[in-house]
Amino acid sequence: MNEIKGRASLIYENPPRILAAASIVGKKEGDGPLGHLFDRIETDPKFGKDTWEEAESELQLQTAKKAMEKCGMSEEQIRYLFAGDLLAQGIATSYGILELQIPLFGLYGACSTCGESLSLASMAINAGYADCAMALTSSHFASAEKEFRFPLEYAGQRPLSTTWTVTGAGAFILASSESVTAKDASVCVAGITTGKVVDYGVKDSMHMGAAMAPAAADTIYQHLMDMGRSVEDYDRIITGDLGSIGQTILKELMGKKGIELKEAHEDCGMLIYDAGTQDTHAGGSGCGCAATTLAAYILPKLERGEWKRVLLVPTGALLSKVSFNEGQSIPGIAHGVVLEHCK
Amino acid sequence: MNEIKGRASLIYENPPRILAAASIVGKKEGDGPLGHLFDRIETDPKFGKDTWEEAESELQLQTAKKAMEKCGMSEEQIRYLFAGDLLAQGIATSYGILELQIPLFGLYGACSTCGESLSLASMAINAGYADCAMALTSSHFASAEKEFRFPLEYAGQRPLSTTWTVTGAGAFILASSESVTAKDASVCVAGITTGKVVDYGVKDSMHMGAAMAPAAADTIYQHLMDMGRSVEDYDRIITGDLGSIGQTILKELMGKKGIELKEAHEDCGMLIYDAGTQDTHAGGSGCGCAATTLAAYILPKLERGEWKRVLLVPTGALLSKVSFNEGQSIPGIAHGVVLEHCK
Repeated sequence: MNEIKGRASLIYENPPRILAAASIVGKKEGDGPLGHLFDRIETDPKFGKDTWEEAESELQLQTAKKAMEKCGMSEEQIRYLFAGDLLAQGIATSYGILELQIPLFGLYGACSTCGESLSLASMAINAGYADCAMALTSSHFASAEKEFRFPLEYAGQRPLSTTWTVTGAGAFILASSESVTAKDASVCVAGITTGKVVDYGVKDSMHMGAAMAPAAADTIYQHLMDMGRSVEDYDRIITGDLGSIGQTILKELMGKKGIELKEAHEDCGMLIYDAGTQDTHAGGSGCGCAATTLAAYILPKLERGEWKRVLLVPTGALLSKVSFNEGQSIPGIAHGVVLEHCK
Repeated sequence: MNEIKGRASLIYENPPRILAAASIVGKKEGDGPLGHLFDRIETDPKFGKDTWEEAESELQLQTAKKAMEKCGMSEEQIRYLFAGDLLAQGIATSYGILELQIPLFGLYGACSTCGESLSLASMAINAGYADCAMALTSSHFASAEKEFRFPLEYAGQRPLSTTWTVTGAGAFILASSESVTAKDASVCVAGITTGKVVDYGVKDSMHMGAAMAPAAADTIYQHLMDMGRSVEDYDRIITGDLGSIGQTILKELMGKKGIELKEAHEDCGMLIYDAGTQDTHAGGSGCGCAATTLAAYILPKLERGEWKRVLLVPTGALLSKVSFNEGQSIPGIAHGVVLEHCK
């Protein structure tokens, strides 16, 4: 058994199955093209709480519970939780998942956290460290604007290169292929490619797609080289939240490496909103963007066998308001996850 | 093979070896009781950079390089980096390790990150996902004060319950027990116990020991139950940064569960400074506290066989300035790592 492929990839001997996935989003996401696919659309942006941060914690908790409900599992049956969010010190997660009392690995991968959490959860299960683990991520438009940009009250104009942070959380329960609970699951995590920090010197925090596209290109290229595969081996290669401008840059960067993504490429940030009517400019972003699109749109297509193999590449921009104000560039990171139909 | 023990613990079949450990600290830590043990004491608190955040990034990078130098390894030989720090969005790590170009799993476990990173790195190696991986964490007094409390210029009085954030970074290179490079290594990670978020409702951010002690008690108790062991099975049980008041609370909480820690307990926060002469009040804290004490003081004792088995329990307080200002309590988390002499 050698599961190691090339510099940064693994192919699992016993690909963990995705038992259940849940997505809860806000009103704007509910109004978008995927609106009919989410598990719940919450019209109260505060989720019944007093602050934006508590709202995001509540969103994360409810999504975790929804995923457990879908596969009839209790907290005690889930051995590890791999979770994170965009806020400073990951407070949406820490306060959100407190009542679950599941051993936690707290993560920070910016908007790539969905990929990072699925990577680590699948590594743990394939290794036999757990029968069952949960990957969980969230973002909230208002808490993210407050964290990274202006308070909403400031009402600053948004340049056309900006993306709109998704209010949404995605929860994924993974189980060993050998566990009885996994017998009906039809999608597995077949392997992963772990991203490096990539910095092309972009300094415009209103242009995240440009900051993250080089990291996405790096991970996709590394993945194809490590695996000895081509774009044609995938039904789709789906990035997290590059948006429309980031997509153009990604395709150009891949073209320079001799790889044409063409119609195989989709981006969760472009799928989740209708930029033409929803005023979201370049697209959606945030940890919740890839997570909810995966749960509501990508996984069902894999479950039905419409797609056989997808490379999901959630992308993260590794800035903070401090690093931005100190004039630093915005490095990116992207984590690749191979999802396969397995019935 | 069943490596799973109880609710939250693993015992590895092939315990990964610690090939090399490095520690770099600031002047105050160099003046403390462990001063003669660190690899380097840097008297320039800015580490040659312009900002506190860049200083911490540089500290982390230099420490990573020091660890690689000690075991004669290059970046290309290290398959994964598990790293994190205390700053919002983990910027000390993202900018610090950029030039290494090692696939990264970014973590946030507050001051427990040293335990979290060693846990995940050892899980990856024991599973055969990597021959070699690095666990890396840092903290910096000035960047942490700026992040969590007052700007230093404010010169606020510090209550006696406060701890002093360690300026320091620790890097650990772990390798498979089967790799040739590991043949001379004499300390292994024998197992882990993964912590849950524990909240006793403490709201005083100047009293971190009280906020974290319940999490430490929870993890230590869980560990002993999972493993079927008692305190006497360990030469030491060493928490990360509870400080002197936190130690008292920990011993009381453990006593209520019928477990007497007595002399077996030490705390990195109490080891790293001389509270009597260094004006550090309850002790040291920060990701760098457990990491540098482990590298400079704990591992050498295990290497020499003075200690045969230590349970290291880095402790983290999961607050942010936003959660604090919004009146939230401060939950804690603690990750246990079993370190054994293995010659």
